[in-house]
Amino acid sequence: MGMHQYLQGLNNLETLNRAPGLFKYQEHSVAAHSFKVAEIAQLLGDIEEENGQTIDWQGLYERALNHDYTERFIGDIKTPVKYATHELRTMLASVESSLTANFIKNEIPTFLQERYQRRLSEGKDETLEGKLLAVADKIDLLYESFGEIEKGNPENAFLEIFAESLKTIMRYQELACARYFIQEILPDLLSEDFADRGKLTQLVRQTLSE
Amino acid sequence: MGMHQYLQGLNNLETLNRAPGLFKYQEHSVAAHSFKVAEIAQLLGDIEEENGQTIDWQGLYERALNHDYTERFIGDIKTPVKYATHELRTMLASVESSLTANFIKNEIPTFLQERYQRRLSEGKDETLEGKLLAVADKIDLLYESFGEIEKGNPENAFLEIFAESLKTIMRYQELACARYFIQEILPDLLSEDFADRGKLTQLVRQTLSE
Amino acid sequence: MGMHQYLQGLNNLETLNRAPGLFKYQEHSVAAHSFKVAEIAQLLGDIEEENGQTIDWQGLYERALNHDYTERFIGDIKTPVKYATHELRTMLASVESSLTANFIKNEIPTFLQERYQRRLSEGKDETLEGKLLAVADKIDLLYESFGEIEKGNPENAFLEIFAESLKTIMRYQELACARYFIQEILPDLLSEDFADRGKLTQLVRQTLSE
Amino acid sequence: MGMHQYLQGLNNLETLNRAPGLFKYQEHSVAAHSFKVAEIAQLLGDIEEENGQTIDWQGLYERALNHDYTERFIGDIKTPVKYATHELRTMLASVESSLTANFIKNEIPTFLQERYQRRLSEGKDETLEGKLLAVADKIDLLYESFGEIEKGNPENAFLEIFAESLKTIMRYQELACARYFIQEILPDLLSEDFADRGKLTQLVRQTLSE
Amino acid sequence: MGMHQYLQGLNNLETLNRAPGLFKYQEHSVAAHSFKVAEIAQLLGDIEEENGQTIDWQGLYERALNHDYTERFIGDIKTPVKYATHELRTMLASVESSLTANFIKNEIPTFLQERYQRRLSEGKDETLEGKLLAVADKIDLLYESFGEIEKGNPENAFLEIFAESLKTIMRYQELACARYFIQEILPDLLSEDFADRGKLTQLVRQTLSE
Amino acid sequence: MGMHQYLQGLNNLETLNRAPGLFKYQEHSVAAHSFKVAEIAQLLGDIEEENGQTIDWQGLYERALNHDYTERFIGDIKTPVKYATHELRTMLASVESSLTANFIKNEIPTFLQERYQRRLSEGKDETLEGKLLAVADKIDLLYESFGEIEKGNPENAFLEIFAESLKTIMRYQELACARYFIQEILPDLLSEDFADRGKLTQLVRQTLSE
Repeated sequence: MGMHQYLQGLNNLETLNRAPGLFKYQEHSVAAHSFKVAEIAQLLGDIEEENGQTIDWQGLYERALNHDYTERFIGDIKTPVKYATHELRTMLASVESSLTANFIKNEIPTFLQERYQRRLSEGKDETLEGKLLAVADKIDLLYESFGEIEKGNPENAFLEIFAESLKTIMRYQELACARYFIQEILPDLLSEDFADRGKLTQLVRQTLSE
Repeated sequence: MGMHQYLQGLNNLETLNRAPGLFKYQEHSVAAHSFKVAEIAQLLGDIEEENGQTIDWQGLYERALNHDYTERFIGDIKTPVKYATHELRTMLASVESSLTANFIKNEIPTFLQERYQRRLSEGKDETLEGKLLAVADKIDLLYESFGEIEKGNPENAFLEIFAESLKTIMRYQELACARYFIQEILPDLLSEDFADRGKLTQLVRQTLSE
Repeated sequence: MGMHQYLQGLNNLETLNRAPGLFKYQEHSVAAHSFKVAEIAQLLGDIEEENGQTIDWQGLYERALNHDYTERFIGDIKTPVKYATHELRTMLASVESSLTANFIKNEIPTFLQERYQRRLSEGKDETLEGKLLAVADKIDLLYESFGEIEKGNPENAFLEIFAESLKTIMRYQELACARYFIQEILPDLLSEDFADRGKLTQLVRQTLSE
Repeated sequence: MGMHQYLQGLNNLETLNRAPGLFKYQEHSVAAHSFKVAEIAQLLGDIEEENGQTIDWQGLYERALNHDYTERFIGDIKTPVKYATHELRTMLASVESSLTANFIKNEIPTFLQERYQRRLSEGKDETLEGKLLAVADKIDLLYESFGEIEKGNPENAFLEIFAESLKTIMRYQELACARYFIQEILPDLLSEDFADRGKLTQLVRQTLSE
Repeated sequence: MGMHQYLQGLNNLETLNRAPGLFKYQEHSVAAHSFKVAEIAQLLGDIEEENGQTIDWQGLYERALNHDYTERFIGDIKTPVKYATHELRTMLASVESSLTANFIKNEIPTFLQERYQRRLSEGKDETLEGKLLAVADKIDLLYESFGEIEKGNPENAFLEIFAESLKTIMRYQELACARYFIQEILPDLLSEDFADRGKLTQLVRQTLSE
Repeated sequence: MGMHQYLQGLNNLETLNRAPGLFKYQEHSVAAHSFKVAEIAQLLGDIEEENGQTIDWQGLYERALNHDYTERFIGDIKTPVKYATHELRTMLASVESSLTANFIKNEIPTFLQERYQRRLSEGKDETLEGKLLAVADKIDLLYESFGEIEKGNPENAFLEIFAESLKTIMRYQELACARYFIQEILPDLLSEDFADRGKLTQLVRQTLSE
């Protein structure tokens, strides 16, 4: 046993891609996603603190970092929206639970088991940190789908995923950070300057005339 | 509706890779796997015919070609061996069933529904063709894992997958084609000539002396 | 000898990509293409049967599955249109013929040679199944090129390939399935809903107002 | 301005690979590396706590997560060992400093600047958390190089990188977690069961005889 | 020592990609870039010769081919524009100088050192050949960025890179080849025929009516 | 017309890979290969000059750089050895000839046609520079195959390609540079230090004891 297997296993989260089966210009691994969700959760925690809330930072980072670790066992099958039925989600919670219990029993040294039991259980709950994780997870999914749309992916599923992510974020509008995202960040996303042939021709004319 | 969506959806089986989460030197898509299983089933059918059996070729090809189409809905999560518990398999059969029924109802024109209902249901059964599909599916899995081992993949799961595939093929030894595989093909696989540094040095000495 | 080499060689068709030399967002291997052509031929066979024709299903599947196996020897060089001169095509038929004869003599056990001689010879002929293969091959090529155009590929060759594929399908309009493709499937392809920034902005406005 | 640019910019850390210029079977992005370093730092913090130390968890997670964010500006050029001269490192610290200051001034809203100033400055210092970051960073580098060696990469640089990483970890042996890594984890890494042809042949013999 | 290490090291320039950190549909290695710059410099030399200039062809080819060899040591960090400050460029010239001197001393046999000293020093100077290298390098960068824009890359940096490249080329308008590029080649680039959905629909209508 | 098409077409040589159809850990594009052959030819020219020969450097560089440009039309099908029959080679020379003539007539401005006619014709002839190209081309092929063998590729074709390349180089032993390669470079290649598990374990023991 020992933690060598655990450390080497982190590599699986690098080779596991999200939302398999749809063509994407850019794939996103579970490892990269976890990094980004932690970065986003960190920002949401900032905004809540600036608005007078108290953040349990250890809890926030811990939830964000580990929230998809258990995808190592089954892969990413909760997305895209179209096939993520309620039936499927319930099943997964159940199977992931028992695979996780097995994993902890067999691969984690006894003196660390309690910590990993906590880390590998569901992080999205009614605490403030649990809510920030839920919002952060959706913000990353929103950016993943926006990334595909702005790169030219014609697949409609990305519009659906974007919309569904936004709806979920809107359900958390009692939180200052959710309001900040919708009022300060989302408008910049929609009105961002982007390159295209029209701008290129314009730029060339400008440059040649100087 | 119409079959445009169905045809375009074949593309998803090209972007869906098998056994996600393990490092592989070469990934295998569900589309490529289906091609190979059909090729292998075709060979198994040959051997059975040569041994006096009657083959329903339409049934054999149809089963082999379509046997993993439904992975389009959930992805490939039955492998690797380590996590494919009985609990998980049962769940998947159930969910795949209802996603498949939905898919046929919404995307397949009525006059074709019966054909696709047949094609997208379980092809591995007690008929000779159903057994040939089961053997062909495992032969491809055996070659996938052998491919990784011979390329240098240190991951033990591939040894386990190879062994489990071989055991399953052995359970079909009442079939002439399964015996043919074990007696004629497997020995060649194990004793194949392969390149390495030792052979290179030897070859260089030989060439320089000519 | 033996069939181990044949089975392992199927892997080469997975690493061989079609239409090399043009930038593509998504490459298509000969293995995946063969899978799709078999799926499409299967559908064309359905439509012909629904229209009163008798289909030799073994012949149809066999032709579709194996029609590009010989690309293993030379690669895919019949496309794109621009360079596929009549001179080149004639040459290839001749060379592929002799490489195929060699391959069968050296790698296929005697008792299976007749079957593979049949499978690795030209499948597009004047039989109904031969015509369905020709149509299916072009439908997949049409979808490959459409896939690139809708993803944003500026390369004009894809428009030429699409047009040439459509022209070929139109030459088979005496077949019910060719007419079905042009009248029922092609309009859906041209009018499909696709994601873009405009729709995204619209969707966001809609979501925010709910 | 706003945090939209910051969030979208996280994507750059996904496309930025470490140690460019050496052939690798598996590339590692800065995003994935940051995830793994945070996971490893989390484990090191566990061990220190179990050994009676007090961990500032917010500080630990914050340092680990953000420690390579500034590679977004220049890329990863401190590795591999061979070219990472002292001259180069000093230069980079200086340039990264001014690019970082620029970035914070132009892209981070004023009310968040102090937080990001802290996050994007050097996290490896004499605090316990700073030391855990230094050790975690090297443990991941050790696993990256081990990963290449065990997959068959002949490039000697990976042996050098492994050795240099181990030496650095050894310099921290006053920490319980560094000793734990060397005494409990490293032996398992060196003696791990790995797949190869020899074991395959053995396994086949075993399976056939059952 | 010996030139084996040098020859094997050319492989590093194949695995090293330019402008790391930005999402690209198509990456360009330093090796491929060097090939293209040599091809472009060859064309510029043609045009200058046609305009009565005398070209030192050995000097031109030598400069073009080897101009980015030293990126093997540090990687490509002079681009993109946004981060390539004057401070950074000066530093690099200095570090590259000493890494290059080291490399020549340790890996190049004495009898070849003078040649490589010349090849691995700065090729862009006030000679005609040095100027042609500067122009060729920018023309390739212009085509790299144009390639991304026309494929649909929304990233504004590519517009900036295109513009900056064009400005640099314009500074060389005393050269006939720079004027030829701006007057004869650039207009064709801006007005090139490219595929899109609109043209596809038009083409289909045309084809169906024939 | 104009040279815009020519310049943009260089991109095709970046997306065209050599020896398609065999599994490789690392693909090599025609563009990268051309770069390396030019670098190798440059070295061979050095050695010949050091041995008293006169080199037409313009001719040498020109041949090396452009020698595979015409693969843009058909792709790389002269390799691997197994299928490159004499019949195929003769055919290709003929087809490439006419495609090349077409290309020059339609895409190259009249005032440059003679230069490109020369560049796109066969560069391997009885001149010293033509022989150096032949040797350089084989040295790169030898390194490509060695690269796969040392990375662990079990495919025997790479041993055959290595041997065939070496035999060809040996036929040029009247040249000082061919003798230099065999006597000074090849021994270093065969005896190079390479990483493996054995050395890793040894290195760890050494490091721990310091």
